[in-house]
Amino acid sequence: MSEYAQSQLYKIRHSSAHILAQAVIEFFSPEPVQIAIGPPIENGFYYDFGLPRSLTPDDLKEIEKRMRKIIGGKPFEFSRRVVSAETARQVFADQVFKLELIDGLEKGGLDENGEPLAGAPVITLYDQPGFTDLCRGPHVASSKEINPKAVSLMSIAGAYWRGDENRPMLQRIYGTAFEKPEELEHYLWQLEEARKRDHRKLGKELGLFHFAEDVGPGIPLFTPKGEQLRYQMEKYVRDLQTKYGYDHVWTGNLVKEDLYRRSGHLENYADAMFPVMEDAEKGVRFRLKPMNCPSHMTLFREMGRHSYRELPMRFAEFATLYRYEKSGELSGLTRVRSLTQDDCHIFCTPSQIEQEFSLALQLITEVLTRYRLSDYKVRLSLRGEGGKYVNDPEKWDLAEAALRTALQANGIEYFEASGEAAFYGPKADFMAKDALGREWQLSTIQVDFIQPARLGLTYVGEDGQEHTPVVLHRAVTGSTERFLGVIIEHFAGNFPVWLAPVQAVLVPITDRHVEYCQQIAQALKASGMRAWVDDSNDRMNAKIRTATKQKVPYILVVGDKEAEAGTLAVRTRSGEDIGTLSVADFLAHAQSEIASGV
Amino acid sequence: MSEYAQSQLYKIRHSSAHILAQAVIEFFSPEPVQIAIGPPIENGFYYDFGLPRSLTPDDLKEIEKRMRKIIGGKPFEFSRRVVSAETARQVFADQVFKLELIDGLEKGGLDENGEPLAGAPVITLYDQPGFTDLCRGPHVASSKEINPKAVSLMSIAGAYWRGDENRPMLQRIYGTAFEKPEELEHYLWQLEEARKRDHRKLGKELGLFHFAEDVGPGIPLFTPKGEQLRYQMEKYVRDLQTKYGYDHVWTGNLVKEDLYRRSGHLENYADAMFPVMEDAEKGVRFRLKPMNCPSHMTLFREMGRHSYRELPMRFAEFATLYRYEKSGELSGLTRVRSLTQDDCHIFCTPSQIEQEFSLALQLITEVLTRYRLSDYKVRLSLRGEGGKYVNDPEKWDLAEAALRTALQANGIEYFEASGEAAFYGPKADFMAKDALGREWQLSTIQVDFIQPARLGLTYVGEDGQEHTPVVLHRAVTGSTERFLGVIIEHFAGNFPVWLAPVQAVLVPITDRHVEYCQQIAQALKASGMRAWVDDSNDRMNAKIRTATKQKVPYILVVGDKEAEAGTLAVRTRSGEDIGTLSVADFLAHAQSEIASGV
Repeated sequence: MSEYAQSQLYKIRHSSAHILAQAVIEFFSPEPVQIAIGPPIENGFYYDFGLPRSLTPDDLKEIEKRMRKIIGGKPFEFSRRVVSAETARQVFADQVFKLELIDGLEKGGLDENGEPLAGAPVITLYDQPGFTDLCRGPHVASSKEINPKAVSLMSIAGAYWRGDENRPMLQRIYGTAFEKPEELEHYLWQLEEARKRDHRKLGKELGLFHFAEDVGPGIPLFTPKGEQLRYQMEKYVRDLQTKYGYDHVWTGNLVKEDLYRRSGHLENYADAMFPVMEDAEKGVRFRLKPMNCPSHMTLFREMGRHSYRELPMRFAEFATLYRYEKSGELSGLTRVRSLTQDDCHIFCTPSQIEQEFSLALQLITEVLTRYRLSDYKVRLSLRGEGGKYVNDPEKWDLAEAALRTALQANGIEYFEASGEAAFYGPKADFMAKDALGREWQLSTIQVDFIQPARLGLTYVGEDGQEHTPVVLHRAVTGSTERFLGVIIEHFAGNFPVWLAPVQAVLVPITDRHVEYCQQIAQALKASGMRAWVDDSNDRMNAKIRTATKQKVPYILVVGDKEAEAGTLAVRTRSGEDIGTLSVADFLAHAQSEIASGV
Repeated sequence: MSEYAQSQLYKIRHSSAHILAQAVIEFFSPEPVQIAIGPPIENGFYYDFGLPRSLTPDDLKEIEKRMRKIIGGKPFEFSRRVVSAETARQVFADQVFKLELIDGLEKGGLDENGEPLAGAPVITLYDQPGFTDLCRGPHVASSKEINPKAVSLMSIAGAYWRGDENRPMLQRIYGTAFEKPEELEHYLWQLEEARKRDHRKLGKELGLFHFAEDVGPGIPLFTPKGEQLRYQMEKYVRDLQTKYGYDHVWTGNLVKEDLYRRSGHLENYADAMFPVMEDAEKGVRFRLKPMNCPSHMTLFREMGRHSYRELPMRFAEFATLYRYEKSGELSGLTRVRSLTQDDCHIFCTPSQIEQEFSLALQLITEVLTRYRLSDYKVRLSLRGEGGKYVNDPEKWDLAEAALRTALQANGIEYFEASGEAAFYGPKADFMAKDALGREWQLSTIQVDFIQPARLGLTYVGEDGQEHTPVVLHRAVTGSTERFLGVIIEHFAGNFPVWLAPVQAVLVPITDRHVEYCQQIAQALKASGMRAWVDDSNDRMNAKIRTATKQKVPYILVVGDKEAEAGTLAVRTRSGEDIGTLSVADFLAHAQSEIASGV
């Protein structure tokens, strides 16, 4: 947010929030309105109000109209003045929420969210003709900087005063504003497109997964098609990892709780774990694994004495982990309780960090490109001031330099974020833009100086002495579930042919063509394709419509002519007519598209 | 056991136990010996004694010698007499255990295990020259029926009187006996071979898996090599299932406990489940899945209304299940707490049972043959008398007939076991003999008339009415872990080439051949082979020895001659010298062995 908070866009949105408040007051006048707070947020702004009645969508249109009139009218300034608490109280004499805010500012130096403020509290007001707000700014200097055609109100929601369910429920109006009308238009298109592509909606339409009351929230059940997607995704990464020299291991889904006590996870992470499984009689407590690192490190240790000659060792696993996210925070596949990470732990010497980091960068880059997510940047998180970081400056310097060098050597665009490292070491996170331009944090590579020592890992170095290995934690797509949610929306369900759960549907024009279709389907399957015959009672056109809606890459229509000639009339899900091909030619065409990743 | 209990072998072993008791008494004479019980068991017999001192292995040899002398001496008879309790007490006046047994027989009609006897208690003694035992028989008529060279004592163990840890600890001598000396020899060879092949021992030597105190008993961690085995095993079955028209689904590792209440599992199966995960605040209880059926049925239901045209639907999953086996009963991979079933649930109409059962038989047969376990028979478990079976005779008749017909049509050897069916339907279990002739219960197919109704599954039939589908439960190898344990011993670690975790090791004669080896390894990997270069400091012969001990199918030695000519000196793990081959010829050779399943 910090770059954003300095931007012109941020000021435009902040000032738009004030104009919204003015418009709402005018709209309800002479009935009184209580105004609470109105900050800019990621994609716009909001303002919370205590109102005489519930807002309707029609009200929103009226209020938006009034806002545009205010902005488009005679230009005016947003002017700041510093005042005493006393003056502020007079200005907001009938505004209960503002009075509470002023009390907070005066007494403890609390900001509008009730958080302590650094430094002596200064109370500032922003004036515009007909409206004054208690506000720290910043704002645009003049209303001329706001384009009325680039402002829009979005929605209404309920929100408790200060987020406290024991305080009054207010009405929140969300809006957004951009510098130019075409930016607003693009944003609205993006929203509409995102709604259409919503993976929960598409997941249902394409029959990929279900959530069942019997199983519990956040644990998706995958249908044959959904499982096929999971399988192809994981197989792709597995094969690539094998090619890059990674090994795969298997460590199950649970461990004794004590392991997490020693690794330090129980202390910091217990809230995110599923409830304990306790065998009181035997005095044993088990936990579902919320992460793999302690298990992989345990396996490394159990495998016996290691020599530096064995390093690096790279343990990858597609393990399903369980995290007890609050049920209110669960959302489709992007926030789940069961998540299958494409996880890897690389055990290496300090001097191998650069080479291993570089190898991981290459693997991640290859995968993101395959998924057409090649518009990404990397955030390199380094240590900052303060005591939370492991106190071993030499290791930090070495690791940070290794990461920087590897990023540069691989020509990867990155920015440094000082003070954003984990306490146990520096890390790099990939932020990739999807087809709608939305940014997702996907891959991660983290250096760990701490856990290997806590869990007693060692190797014998060239000097014959015992050393603690460095561990790199690495995930490529993050988790299968979340990544699937992202790519369903990214591809709008039009998965590349290599990934599509069903690659070809055969459509017999009449019942007498079913048998020929079955034969072709068998031949395609034998060549590794996922083909299926629609032998339902539907008519040809309905079958083609169904296959198109199911976003099946190839629709192969077979009538008398095709059955006789041993050919297929090939169409695509986008409606393109590829023409009539022999089975061999179709197969060659499909296989070349599969190989190219289209 | 019932067939065995009628056999001559059973009598030979029972009489051998009496001869053992006589030999022990004579061995310790004049010191008194307390004799307890001495029954035949699966692979021999034992006798429990209260002795003046602890037995040594040397004692065992002496006692065995004495037994052979008794048997090989003047032939004698085992003669039975019925006596009163009073007479019996006189005979065993100084035998406290026998006196307790006589009391039991007299009072409650309890047998030697303290179990109630059916019918009025009859006390019988068996006499031989120099020894009389309280015994129900049966015995051989004459000592001539026992071949002294076919009798052997095996081991000594401690055993509580009547298995009660509050009663005296006795010394148990295990022995075995066969009709012919060569049968004893074969049995001893089999035991010795089983010791050598013990999968726990081989698992360590080949570096396949570990059990860690940190994770808990019964949950193996698989190393890269062990995971490769798991992966190849599961991939093989998955690909085959896909070929046979099965779909794969994914349902995670846990469900809400309530699902198992409704399915009936909680009532019958709670002891075998891991402890509950309880979120008391939210009032939710979760359980790790001990089986997949309720999850697959839930998914079937969540997928919406089904038509008979969609059936059969076949949901397969390699899901890791968790069963809380008692820690004392855990054993290597063959009895674990985490087990990955190659599970499938087939939803079908009653008239599809035969065809689906037949398809499953074919799939299982193909898999067992691939693993060279084609010496198997099938136990067809049918309903018997008694109230435990679902009362729907029509369904039972139909299903039992369908199973019988399918077994016959597929030419599979089977025997019927009346009264051995599950309460919910008939089933077929595959009992396969491994390379040592030991029998393992592996695959299973079970018909289920109950759970689908309990969980509310329906489909719309051709008649437009709602019907409950029949479900077939089916597992091919059983579980990946147990099956791996079985085949490690079956193959003695010499996995077929297609399955071997490392298929080829390249052995550079000197350091200057390492690079060429790396190139060849890359080429082999690109062709899908699992190849590895031994670039350690060891000498060539040591490397060959290591690869042989690691049971790697192909050992490829490379020196100047090979590097220059682009060839490989190919050896096998059995020591065979295949000769010098071009890389292409070696690859062709290996690929043909992989394809043939050798």
